[in-house]
Amino acid sequence: MDRRHVLAGAAASAVLAAPALSQGLVRWRMATTWPKSLDTLYGSAEALCRRVTQLSEGKFTIQCFAGGEIVPALQSFDAVQTGSVECSHILSSNFLGKDINFAFDGGLPFGLNMRQQTAWVHEGGGLNLLRDLYKKYNCVNFLAGNVGVQMGGFFRREIRTVEDLSGLKMRIGGFGGRILAKFGGVPQVLAASDIYSALERGTIDATEWVGPYDDEKLGFHRIARFYYSPGWWEGSAAITAIANTAAWESLSDVNKALFETACNEQNTLMMAKYDARNPDALRRIVGAGTQLRIFPRPMMEAMYRSSFEEFETLASQNADFKKLYEAWLPFLDNSNAWFRVAEYTLDSFRLTSRIPGR
Amino acid sequence: MDRRHVLAGAAASAVLAAPALSQGLVRWRMATTWPKSLDTLYGSAEALCRRVTQLSEGKFTIQCFAGGEIVPALQSFDAVQTGSVECSHILSSNFLGKDINFAFDGGLPFGLNMRQQTAWVHEGGGLNLLRDLYKKYNCVNFLAGNVGVQMGGFFRREIRTVEDLSGLKMRIGGFGGRILAKFGGVPQVLAASDIYSALERGTIDATEWVGPYDDEKLGFHRIARFYYSPGWWEGSAAITAIANTAAWESLSDVNKALFETACNEQNTLMMAKYDARNPDALRRIVGAGTQLRIFPRPMMEAMYRSSFEEFETLASQNADFKKLYEAWLPFLDNSNAWFRVAEYTLDSFRLTSRIPGR
Repeated sequence: MDRRHVLAGAAASAVLAAPALSQGLVRWRMATTWPKSLDTLYGSAEALCRRVTQLSEGKFTIQCFAGGEIVPALQSFDAVQTGSVECSHILSSNFLGKDINFAFDGGLPFGLNMRQQTAWVHEGGGLNLLRDLYKKYNCVNFLAGNVGVQMGGFFRREIRTVEDLSGLKMRIGGFGGRILAKFGGVPQVLAASDIYSALERGTIDATEWVGPYDDEKLGFHRIARFYYSPGWWEGSAAITAIANTAAWESLSDVNKALFETACNEQNTLMMAKYDARNPDALRRIVGAGTQLRIFPRPMMEAMYRSSFEEFETLASQNADFKKLYEAWLPFLDNSNAWFRVAEYTLDSFRLTSRIPGR
Repeated sequence: MDRRHVLAGAAASAVLAAPALSQGLVRWRMATTWPKSLDTLYGSAEALCRRVTQLSEGKFTIQCFAGGEIVPALQSFDAVQTGSVECSHILSSNFLGKDINFAFDGGLPFGLNMRQQTAWVHEGGGLNLLRDLYKKYNCVNFLAGNVGVQMGGFFRREIRTVEDLSGLKMRIGGFGGRILAKFGGVPQVLAASDIYSALERGTIDATEWVGPYDDEKLGFHRIARFYYSPGWWEGSAAITAIANTAAWESLSDVNKALFETACNEQNTLMMAKYDARNPDALRRIVGAGTQLRIFPRPMMEAMYRSSFEEFETLASQNADFKKLYEAWLPFLDNSNAWFRVAEYTLDSFRLTSRIPGR
């Protein structure tokens, strides 16, 4: 995923109105990184804002903005950092250029799945570590949703071997592009609005976005024949709400709790929306003639080894990465061992068995 | 799972104080079905109550009680139904004797996993259907958590074939017991406090409960050598908060929203707690000498076929079951098809691959 919805004339640097403090009312603005058309991501941010407003009976209101409305999408993190808006709603993998360590928040290749990420953040010590990271950028972070395992994206040609990645021009953000480049791929970052024409003209050979429900809206299935799975570059893609530290500290305890609760609620509801809507969207995409493909196992194995090598390299070069990795890796390993026993065993049986009569 | 913590002298039928209505304050009591020792289940109910109290700044307080404190655990549903308490916190699979259709809420054998159940309830039409069901019992229901896939329980002897189930005396609640009985097993319902001695004396041969973290507390690993997986009798075990309909209708809109939000938050946080704590608990149980076993595939296949046969039989006999089943089954089938593509493909790769260097 990567979002770059820059509206012409958007006033990133404009001096925005200070929060209303009269009568104990708190008014925040959430400058999200999403277009309104993505009712999953933007819709979840909007629901979060509505919930805070509703539960506080209007004493703490958060107005939700699409990317580009008051701040260009990918400048929204900076806007929160400098305090020109109070909060944002991001996929932190889009900000690895700012700090590679945000990958522990948004998701690492072959990393924690949605439940594991949630468990690590809330019950595995992850939140404190991530809070330390965001503090450097003058922000307080909250796990506010997840899109689950993403699709591997649309490709104009089949990927049969690792060698087929050589020279592949692919729109891919975050950590995935870093790994792709190690195999001769050419990762590109393009604005959402530019992807379709680039793919159509052959300027790029492939693009990943999110999953069937979101991808369908962007129409890639009309111009690229192969839809690959899985999006191995994030074990799951977690969505983060960030608040400016000073703005956060100025909140009353109950307003802090309201914001936090609304984020936790969206971790349930955003995932539910994706899980309920992706199946039909995939059916429609395949029904329209798209060829569904799974990345070949030898390629997956090469990406897997390469990803962990990259983690080790980064840990040897970057003290923050090392600290996070040394907390994250045992959690992943330990959690995988448990998931293998019950969750995966039953899911595996169910998902590989035909439902009688269907 | 099954909970029957009946404290001697608990006053199920006692006339309890009416909710305080003075000064616009609302005071509710939640009579849970859990012992306080289960910090996962009881802890989540308590956190839910605390959240409502906190966010309402004390205007809507819910006092949380363990099973047996003010109502015997398994009479708490009745207590909500009659209005003697305002709300409870249950695994609805424990109330299949009241209505078999509650299995669609708590979980059916080989049914929806945690994410699928959440998606069905919130975005797949499940909530409305379940609301119709609970309405018959004068209750309004809320998805308030999940324990995920459960373990298959502790066995004093190995299960090698389906025939080994014949004559097996097992403490197992809900739908699982119904299927076990079809293979000659003898399902038994025992109070939590009675299981250990029954298993030790050989009055029962096996018992299931929840998963490593909860099971460890009950000490079964000290007296039964084999710990089986998975607990196929629920695709996941969802936890439900129920409120008395009249009590619910008397709430203001904001108090309704507070309760609902707190339930949605716990759907995230309860699962996170289990997912974070089960791995170490399993390690300790196995470290103490317990033999971990997976149910043989032919047995799983027999249980699978038998479960779907039972669904069909019930649908032919019970109009409510038919209505729910005809909504649930296509959702399961459709959702499984999608989970196979991305989520399962990546999880499967990750979980069957060794992490390099570990």
